[in-house]
Amino acid sequence: MSDSSTLALAKDLISRESVTPEDAGCQEVMINRLKKLGFEIEVMVFEDTTNFWARRGTSAPLFAFAGHTDVVPPGDVSQWHTPPFEPTVIDEYLHGRGAADMKGSLACMIVAVERFIESNPNHQGSIAFLITSDEEGPFINGTTRVVDTLMARDELIDMCIVGEPSSTHHVGDVIKNGRRGSITGDLVIKGTQGHVAYPHLANNPVHQALPALSELVETTWDNGNEFFPPTSFQIPNLHSGTGASNVIPGEFSVQFNFRFSTEITSDQIKSKVHSILDAHGLEYELNWTLSGQPFLTGSGELLKSVVKAVEEVNHKTPELLTTGGTSDGRFIAKMGSQVVELGPVNATIHKINECVSIPDLEKLTDMYEKTLENLLG
Amino acid sequence: MSDSSTLALAKDLISRESVTPEDAGCQEVMINRLKKLGFEIEVMVFEDTTNFWARRGTSAPLFAFAGHTDVVPPGDVSQWHTPPFEPTVIDEYLHGRGAADMKGSLACMIVAVERFIESNPNHQGSIAFLITSDEEGPFINGTTRVVDTLMARDELIDMCIVGEPSSTHHVGDVIKNGRRGSITGDLVIKGTQGHVAYPHLANNPVHQALPALSELVETTWDNGNEFFPPTSFQIPNLHSGTGASNVIPGEFSVQFNFRFSTEITSDQIKSKVHSILDAHGLEYELNWTLSGQPFLTGSGELLKSVVKAVEEVNHKTPELLTTGGTSDGRFIAKMGSQVVELGPVNATIHKINECVSIPDLEKLTDMYEKTLENLLG
Ligand SMILES: [Zn+2]
Ligand SMILES: [Zn+2]
Repeated sequence: MSDSSTLALAKDLISRESVTPEDAGCQEVMINRLKKLGFEIEVMVFEDTTNFWARRGTSAPLFAFAGHTDVVPPGDVSQWHTPPFEPTVIDEYLHGRGAADMKGSLACMIVAVERFIESNPNHQGSIAFLITSDEEGPFINGTTRVVDTLMARDELIDMCIVGEPSSTHHVGDVIKNGRRGSITGDLVIKGTQGHVAYPHLANNPVHQALPALSELVETTWDNGNEFFPPTSFQIPNLHSGTGASNVIPGEFSVQFNFRFSTEITSDQIKSKVHSILDAHGLEYELNWTLSGQPFLTGSGELLKSVVKAVEEVNHKTPELLTTGGTSDGRFIAKMGSQVVELGPVNATIHKINECVSIPDLEKLTDMYEKTLENLLG
Repeated sequence: MSDSSTLALAKDLISRESVTPEDAGCQEVMINRLKKLGFEIEVMVFEDTTNFWARRGTSAPLFAFAGHTDVVPPGDVSQWHTPPFEPTVIDEYLHGRGAADMKGSLACMIVAVERFIESNPNHQGSIAFLITSDEEGPFINGTTRVVDTLMARDELIDMCIVGEPSSTHHVGDVIKNGRRGSITGDLVIKGTQGHVAYPHLANNPVHQALPALSELVETTWDNGNEFFPPTSFQIPNLHSGTGASNVIPGEFSVQFNFRFSTEITSDQIKSKVHSILDAHGLEYELNWTLSGQPFLTGSGELLKSVVKAVEEVNHKTPELLTTGGTSDGRFIAKMGSQVVELGPVNATIHKINECVSIPDLEKLTDMYEKTLENLLG
């Protein structure tokens, strides 16, 4: 039996070693398929990153598939059961780096659009692709710059499916209809360095900071809401000390990260943290990095259509979640777009022996096609 | 005016670049002087470290001067006003690495003994020198090994003056009649690594440990006593994190150090720390390094004689303190010896432009000589 159209395309993409920010020809493969369907192609290269924007149609609504051709590095190749860039089928699973995140999804999108246009050559609205090779990297020259370009010319995406692997056990069991925000604080608490034998001449910033850090850990930032879990606080990194056991350190560096719901703003988080640190009388410097505001597609035509498409394929209603890391959805949501994420099972992403269920890829192709039918058919 | 005997010898020693564990001929200079006085010399080389033991007399009590010929590195030589290994007199101060710690003291000891023996050729008891070139280094092959050797043959020092720079403003204002103990704990708290987006799947060891660390900081370990300040707890080093802002760390390393009085034992400290960590339900590994038990010479013939000698020179009673870092006194005290430390002002030790007051060196020579008179004259 020869490979299905989706499987063949997924294999082709996986065989290209597109570790971030490399694209390794993946986008050209996609562009050639889309050109044949009458898409207008706009390649956007920013610094080391290749992106493209493809659009078919000029009328509203503007529906887009968004995704990335880049993959994370394979890690220790000797631990892979199959070579990471040689797509290999074992027991109905397609193995290879990017199989689940997200070259499988890209293949499903292309094939879904091909089928949809075949049966709906004069569809309503417009279909677009927003594809980057920078999603796994620093997020600087990818989706965010394409979005800036589109916004500058007032070409706003109305509805967008991001192909990130949203599913837990089988494809479509979970749709991500939003994401938490993420903000990081880099805190340096100042003390006075000295010798441990003369503690009265020094001021240990670690000792000073412990009660404040405990309070940050114990604080309830919000209680979440229907779509979001409560805002979480974590200390991923901290450091103090010269390495010598007899020197009281002069500085204490603590990095913390919030994943926050729509029940609190990044400004509220900042001001609450400052008030806790100030209440403990600490001398400190604190620099903030906002990785993304939270976004939510709580209702609307897109969500309805995607849920219906999933139900038609799975005969089961998908769960709507906003858990997990950030995605490029946050950049697209800035346009005021409805955004949902629907993709394969994420159990193996970024891991050794990444793989995706081939039947799930076929179902995902159907889900994408049915969504198009529901929205633009 | 030509240099005094003490100043000339101090200059000779400083001009030898004896950065730990190098001796650079310093001990040979001392040995040659002591041989002329009838001392029996025993050079003890352990690994990279040269030490010597010199003794004059066979009867009790056995009084010893202890000290070290090694010095700490000069640091940035361009910041020195005078070359660190070219002894230079400026305004009654002798400048050079080791001037205060402790080549000045070594010169005073030798000259004091020369003068004492000149007037007391048939002194009571025995006089000894225990000299190492390892005091500023790892403390492995220096005084501790000489002490082991002496103890193995039951040759026990009864009374010892260590020439460490004990003084604060002028020589003899402070005598150290003991030192706190020092014990270091290397603690690793175990958690479960994970992604900050999925905190429920991880267990942040930093968050777990904060309350226990706060309790350790806030604990009163003892209240000290007449001679010792309260036992102090300090965290000189701690670290956690992979460096990535989205990874919850799996381990948290904390190093803490106690400087402890004679009111608590190292075993009591250990058991109290373990009980606090256990009470907080932490999973951890903890390794202890005991750098030295505390020692105290609260009274006795030696202390009385040294105090009297200082009073005769200064017309002022010295303060008895046990503050400051550890010294080789802790190894000698293991023999059951009475141990006091008396040396020049420590304001510039281990620093750029180390120097010592030349009048103070003359006074210190007198103090050492008068102590010998009081004890063995
Ligand atoms: Zn992805
Ligand atoms: Zn010293």
